[in-house]
Amino acid sequence: MGLTFLRPRINEKMEAKEKPIFIGIAGASGSGKSLLASQLCHLVNDEFGDEQVKIINEDCYYRCRDGLTFAEREVVNYDHPDALEHDLLIQHLIQLASGQTVDVPQYDYSQHNRSPEVTKVKPVKVFLIEGILILHHPELRKLLDLKIFVDVDLDVCLSRRLVRDIDERGRTVESVLQQYHETVRPMFHQFLSPSKNHADLVVPRGGKNSAAISVIQNYIKSILRTH
Amino acid sequence: MGLTFLRPRINEKMEAKEKPIFIGIAGASGSGKSLLASQLCHLVNDEFGDEQVKIINEDCYYRCRDGLTFAEREVVNYDHPDALEHDLLIQHLIQLASGQTVDVPQYDYSQHNRSPEVTKVKPVKVFLIEGILILHHPELRKLLDLKIFVDVDLDVCLSRRLVRDIDERGRTVESVLQQYHETVRPMFHQFLSPSKNHADLVVPRGGKNSAAISVIQNYIKSILRTH
Repeated sequence: MGLTFLRPRINEKMEAKEKPIFIGIAGASGSGKSLLASQLCHLVNDEFGDEQVKIINEDCYYRCRDGLTFAEREVVNYDHPDALEHDLLIQHLIQLASGQTVDVPQYDYSQHNRSPEVTKVKPVKVFLIEGILILHHPELRKLLDLKIFVDVDLDVCLSRRLVRDIDERGRTVESVLQQYHETVRPMFHQFLSPSKNHADLVVPRGGKNSAAISVIQNYIKSILRTH
Repeated sequence: MGLTFLRPRINEKMEAKEKPIFIGIAGASGSGKSLLASQLCHLVNDEFGDEQVKIINEDCYYRCRDGLTFAEREVVNYDHPDALEHDLLIQHLIQLASGQTVDVPQYDYSQHNRSPEVTKVKPVKVFLIEGILILHHPELRKLLDLKIFVDVDLDVCLSRRLVRDIDERGRTVESVLQQYHETVRPMFHQFLSPSKNHADLVVPRGGKNSAAISVIQNYIKSILRTH
């Protein structure tokens, strides 16, 4: 009886001590990094029957732009690292690593601005940190236990982006292509592509690469079994 | 007693039924693919205390050149796929998959020719098939359960190759560079680099990439635990 009573408290203490594993997943917009992250998350959580893996989306850390008008917010270069509050993301990872719950901001794409709501995120054993510039920031990279870059040819990424932005976000071909040539493509070559050099693993074909998913999935499961 | 007596035979039958897992590891000469393969092999076999993983080196399948003089053998383009007897390697993998032991040829670099000796290789659970053109041949690729490409910048590969060939093989800088520009580099661009498109996973930095080694190692261990 005494042992049964104590066990949850011992486990709590042990879990609090163990730093979560942070796996960074970077790649171009349309590379399939979100699909890769969600597949890994579902496959592992389904097997373990619990929320052991969570995704943190870099998009949530787009800066608060309350000081700008809607028209001004529309023309921000969202593919430049300065558009993202990486310092807050870093702070959150450090807090999660020390066992604290964090308030992850929510982003309202329709307003090009951060919404007032937050998402409470409790520490779990494995976090997948997913976004275009996850491997760009040196201090952020230092916190990552595994750095993955999803590598897909830019024409394939563009064709996926066109379909998604036209179908799901109601945009025109012209506006997608204009943004693509003004910010997406130049920022890819300036920031994303060089950040690939920091990757530990490069995953071709993104979320449809079942062999890579199997390897990374088994790695995460092995962490969960021994962590 | 009856069960104890039967158990080894049941296990034998079960093991014979299970196809080994074939993991292909390709990459330029000097990329660190051999180091990656040997590290994976040692790390896994050390933990399992048994020879569960074996390496098959593509170099063993350089063609028998008994019909050529030494001078003729010296000028063969060993970086072209035709220099390799991939058909024999394919046949061996099929035989291993069906539980048969195979005679892997031995290659004598000093003679630029196959030696008369062979190495008897018995089926184990995981084979790492390592060599520059492992992802080039379509029929060979079909047999691979996981296709890895070790991706290291060519200048880094060349500097490693220079050190190795001068120190270990007693060659001159001039002869290494001549071969490099005559065959190694053009064949890399013609055959190796395009074969990267077939990779499931790309490993930067080769055998010194501890994060990638950890991921692939855990994947192999997970196979061994469930296979």
